[in-house]
Amino acid sequence: MLKVGIIGAGRIGKVHGESISKYVKNAEIKSIADAYLNDDTREWAKSKGIHEIYTDYKKILEDPEIDAVLICSSTDTHSPISIEAIRAGKHVFCEKPIDHDLSRIKEVINELGKSKVKYQVGFNRRFDHNFMSVKNAVVAGKIGEPRILKITSRDPEAPSIDYVKVSGGMFLDMTIHDFDMVRYLLDSEVEEVYAAGGVLIDKAIGEAGDIDTAIITLKMKNGTLAVIDNSRQSAYGYDQRAEVFGSLGQVAVANDSTSTAVISNGAGVTGEKPLFFFLERYMRAYALEVTEFIDAIVNNTPTPVNAEDGLQAVLIGVAATKSLYENRPVKISEIKF
Amino acid sequence: MLKVGIIGAGRIGKVHGESISKYVKNAEIKSIADAYLNDDTREWAKSKGIHEIYTDYKKILEDPEIDAVLICSSTDTHSPISIEAIRAGKHVFCEKPIDHDLSRIKEVINELGKSKVKYQVGFNRRFDHNFMSVKNAVVAGKIGEPRILKITSRDPEAPSIDYVKVSGGMFLDMTIHDFDMVRYLLDSEVEEVYAAGGVLIDKAIGEAGDIDTAIITLKMKNGTLAVIDNSRQSAYGYDQRAEVFGSLGQVAVANDSTSTAVISNGAGVTGEKPLFFFLERYMRAYALEVTEFIDAIVNNTPTPVNAEDGLQAVLIGVAATKSLYENRPVKISEIKF
Amino acid sequence: MLKVGIIGAGRIGKVHGESISKYVKNAEIKSIADAYLNDDTREWAKSKGIHEIYTDYKKILEDPEIDAVLICSSTDTHSPISIEAIRAGKHVFCEKPIDHDLSRIKEVINELGKSKVKYQVGFNRRFDHNFMSVKNAVVAGKIGEPRILKITSRDPEAPSIDYVKVSGGMFLDMTIHDFDMVRYLLDSEVEEVYAAGGVLIDKAIGEAGDIDTAIITLKMKNGTLAVIDNSRQSAYGYDQRAEVFGSLGQVAVANDSTSTAVISNGAGVTGEKPLFFFLERYMRAYALEVTEFIDAIVNNTPTPVNAEDGLQAVLIGVAATKSLYENRPVKISEIKF
Amino acid sequence: MLKVGIIGAGRIGKVHGESISKYVKNAEIKSIADAYLNDDTREWAKSKGIHEIYTDYKKILEDPEIDAVLICSSTDTHSPISIEAIRAGKHVFCEKPIDHDLSRIKEVINELGKSKVKYQVGFNRRFDHNFMSVKNAVVAGKIGEPRILKITSRDPEAPSIDYVKVSGGMFLDMTIHDFDMVRYLLDSEVEEVYAAGGVLIDKAIGEAGDIDTAIITLKMKNGTLAVIDNSRQSAYGYDQRAEVFGSLGQVAVANDSTSTAVISNGAGVTGEKPLFFFLERYMRAYALEVTEFIDAIVNNTPTPVNAEDGLQAVLIGVAATKSLYENRPVKISEIKF
Repeated sequence: MLKVGIIGAGRIGKVHGESISKYVKNAEIKSIADAYLNDDTREWAKSKGIHEIYTDYKKILEDPEIDAVLICSSTDTHSPISIEAIRAGKHVFCEKPIDHDLSRIKEVINELGKSKVKYQVGFNRRFDHNFMSVKNAVVAGKIGEPRILKITSRDPEAPSIDYVKVSGGMFLDMTIHDFDMVRYLLDSEVEEVYAAGGVLIDKAIGEAGDIDTAIITLKMKNGTLAVIDNSRQSAYGYDQRAEVFGSLGQVAVANDSTSTAVISNGAGVTGEKPLFFFLERYMRAYALEVTEFIDAIVNNTPTPVNAEDGLQAVLIGVAATKSLYENRPVKISEIKF
Repeated sequence: MLKVGIIGAGRIGKVHGESISKYVKNAEIKSIADAYLNDDTREWAKSKGIHEIYTDYKKILEDPEIDAVLICSSTDTHSPISIEAIRAGKHVFCEKPIDHDLSRIKEVINELGKSKVKYQVGFNRRFDHNFMSVKNAVVAGKIGEPRILKITSRDPEAPSIDYVKVSGGMFLDMTIHDFDMVRYLLDSEVEEVYAAGGVLIDKAIGEAGDIDTAIITLKMKNGTLAVIDNSRQSAYGYDQRAEVFGSLGQVAVANDSTSTAVISNGAGVTGEKPLFFFLERYMRAYALEVTEFIDAIVNNTPTPVNAEDGLQAVLIGVAATKSLYENRPVKISEIKF
Repeated sequence: MLKVGIIGAGRIGKVHGESISKYVKNAEIKSIADAYLNDDTREWAKSKGIHEIYTDYKKILEDPEIDAVLICSSTDTHSPISIEAIRAGKHVFCEKPIDHDLSRIKEVINELGKSKVKYQVGFNRRFDHNFMSVKNAVVAGKIGEPRILKITSRDPEAPSIDYVKVSGGMFLDMTIHDFDMVRYLLDSEVEEVYAAGGVLIDKAIGEAGDIDTAIITLKMKNGTLAVIDNSRQSAYGYDQRAEVFGSLGQVAVANDSTSTAVISNGAGVTGEKPLFFFLERYMRAYALEVTEFIDAIVNNTPTPVNAEDGLQAVLIGVAATKSLYENRPVKISEIKF
Repeated sequence: MLKVGIIGAGRIGKVHGESISKYVKNAEIKSIADAYLNDDTREWAKSKGIHEIYTDYKKILEDPEIDAVLICSSTDTHSPISIEAIRAGKHVFCEKPIDHDLSRIKEVINELGKSKVKYQVGFNRRFDHNFMSVKNAVVAGKIGEPRILKITSRDPEAPSIDYVKVSGGMFLDMTIHDFDMVRYLLDSEVEEVYAAGGVLIDKAIGEAGDIDTAIITLKMKNGTLAVIDNSRQSAYGYDQRAEVFGSLGQVAVANDSTSTAVISNGAGVTGEKPLFFFLERYMRAYALEVTEFIDAIVNNTPTPVNAEDGLQAVLIGVAATKSLYENRPVKISEIKF
């Protein structure tokens, strides 16, 4: 029975905690730490049978019984806590992104080089049943050689302006998932990126130095073309689709909804909206990613999403941001760190 | 160039006239006859280059240049004019039903036995692209041996009470198309029919001696089961679907609409309603059925829907009506005429 | 914390056990009993932390700490164990059907009249997200007054001939779920039933005295018509659909599949098959039904599916069986017990 | 009755001829001219009742009875014949593109400035029922302010290498339709274009100096972003889709197919492929565009697609080509002519 500590018991920390207690046979949550502990979190922990509740995450790292930690605290703490945890010999599951600063991600990777711990980054969409179906179809050769990948990724509602200011920009905060998806689905690295973006939803987002709408084109090293379209607000909910078009055909996935119910009446033929947001859409994916993290530890196999994957997605995001502001295609090799 | 006369230039007569002038190379409309000729019809005829316009259909039958007639007049005139036309040596396309009275249909068939003219009944749905796809899949063996056929057939709006009174009842007026479709899709005769029906839309329909909603179960001679559900009124328009389920799978067809447009918004994901009614849905089928009628004459091949088909559909309708009122399954062999 | 015993730890007993341990906060499995205990079941129980494992269910009924039992043993034991459990003051969740013999169901209901225990019957489909969407749309008035209900219910593969012989016949074994669904969706009782059936899949089923394919028409007390089509074998998997057509429109639900992936290639545009069978399709429904059972106990509210519901579904099944063999519509009021 | 001459009686010239004879009441084809007249074309003309058949198009322009000409000859002849026809006082319907050379299109526009003839360019997709539905939804405000437009446009099979060499490049030959669609659907001009492309289908296309796969991003003057993805070859047929995403929702259109038939079997749930290519998909659009051209003449109203529209689409194509080869976003205002 692996003993796990959760560092940062906010929304996503609790999601992982629930997943482990429900679905993961060979692990249990021993302790949680949250700098902003509140009664709700204490209550939640008790209901899960977690009795070690700290404000200081170091308590978890110092506990010799702890095998692994889940780093779910604020983004700026991801890389320093990662390094501390690795040094403490704990396996690490770290929420994305590892850091906005590429050199600090590099330090995490360097630290991993000196250690034997497992490290996984929280690119949950790789564990989504729909995107896995796309991947499986591509790998099975059902569409032949990929030529064009299209990803649509739109949030139902924009984050707060306060969050926007510390988010690292839309490409590092939101599109980063899509950048990882491009690498995952095409099994190739990005060579060059061109980003067109604008502020079409809320001027305040622009005033905070960010954009809210974008189209990003990526040229892959293997010649495939990819395109991502993003919006921070979608009237019909979370829109998460992908299509891979290849020499023998295309595989596409649509959104999920609560049921297959369709009402036909004088107004038309109406099905349900997509599931509202990431917690609804990716609940099963969150469960699967932590299950696979624990499995990688137990079986001593590579984690399915490693620190290098975490680095690459940020790297593409940095290049995309540069492209946006310089209004030109940017080669990944231009980004130095 | 075959010369054709149209007897009864109402809505459906004009549809066939348009089809011949647009799509049928080797035929032209020479004359029309309508007992209730009005200015619109005269105008329409002129615009099509038809200059022989009569109130008396006998003028058409007496014209030695006429090769074929389309009988599109009221139902009660179908069988007598059919017999006169056959005797006059004219090929006949007759709208459904040939007659509500089975013995009079028998007379038409007898008359055809003494003649060499072609005779086709207007079961237009056999020429619909969707139902033909179902038929083709079944014939090609794609679903194996058929086990269950389901037909949904619902009109957008009920006919006038005046029409209901002379319609012969819903089964002979509306369901007759579905009865023909059952025989066409399953390539087997009906052995027994059970009809459950009610008045759920408009009491006036009940007072006129008819029903407006029904479920009809049919046992086929080859053992397959079929079920039809009917409604005289559908809030979302004309609902015309079929599914054949067999040992290797199922083939199903849905409705057509004006476009594939789907609008996603806060209310859901909404596609268009089905095409409104038979003129919209079956326009291409109407064109194809008269084209095939003319082709059968020109090539001296059997017509695709013959008088026996016309008889069988009415026979099933009579048995269904008997079943409804006696509330028991009725064998087709019970119906004597 | 309610303490629950499982009587009959076969496939469905284990499903309920898993559900309670994963999803039901205020209940735990204390003991299981299975007349045919094997090592797999012992292992499974241990993995769930269940340490009281019996071959004799009476051990569970005699345990004063047990609050509720789940009766998941063979059908012939449902009603006698129900009565014993009620007398022992245990709340009962009983798999369907309560009994094939109506008078024995009546005895269970009589026993309940003398007791205060909760009793729920395992009509799991009422808890399916798709069928609940249909129910919600109907209750919310979105389709107006219901006129026609259509249910398609087809199993992927026929049961063994040994099972067929003790199943009580297809209507009491398989269609019983659909009969309950008719009552649930239309909120009305059945007045009359007509069943047409045949042996189209496997002669051995016929030799065992049963049928494998059927169409059942039901007239409801409120005038609505319903139709069910059943098959014991479907090449494309479990087919579980329903449509309610009403004065203002229609609500329909389709099957679920593993993902929304669609592959377009030279062969067409291909989506996934439906989920294979009941364990896949109804997993979430099974979890919800036991959750609601426990909630009904804790909150002292009526169970969502009671013994009367269990009686009615069998009653319709008995009438349908009579209809099939007498080849005539049978009124529910004809069935005496 | 307008008298029309067809210049260039190849595939598309005959399509327009058929449309006029079938659907356009107030026009007739009086003459055709084709520099490469063959027996098939002569036969076709006779079957349509066209008796004036020339190899020299000047014969048509010199005929004082001719009101309008359809220029369907090779692309290099479009602008010179346009100018001659305008000078001869004939209304002109010209296939796309008017010319690959912007200055020659400018000459056509100048010539039109001195004349009163109507001029329409053959952007047939504006008349497609699906794209019109998108346009109508946008104009009706159903999706609010547009933010992102996505167009997928893929041909089923690549043209011959001989054709590729004289095509003007994929952007002027194929994407030109999509550029026009962007302007049509968004009702705004393009400000800047960025094109990423590659040779992923056939090296010979690359050797002929062209590409076969592309993603083109467009920034509109009103701030909306648009993206087009193109492929010269699609294993599942002609893929012609569009989505407009806006502040209140999204409207999307899918492909059409021959029927709605869906076959469910052990391999999945399979619908039909899209209609094969432009002649199948756009047949109704071709009929509508010439009908509207004739209507514009008869009613003396503006044509729905004018020479300026023809110029803009080529302009975007030239900018896209420049972007591709210089690998940078190109402003439309950079293109001088």
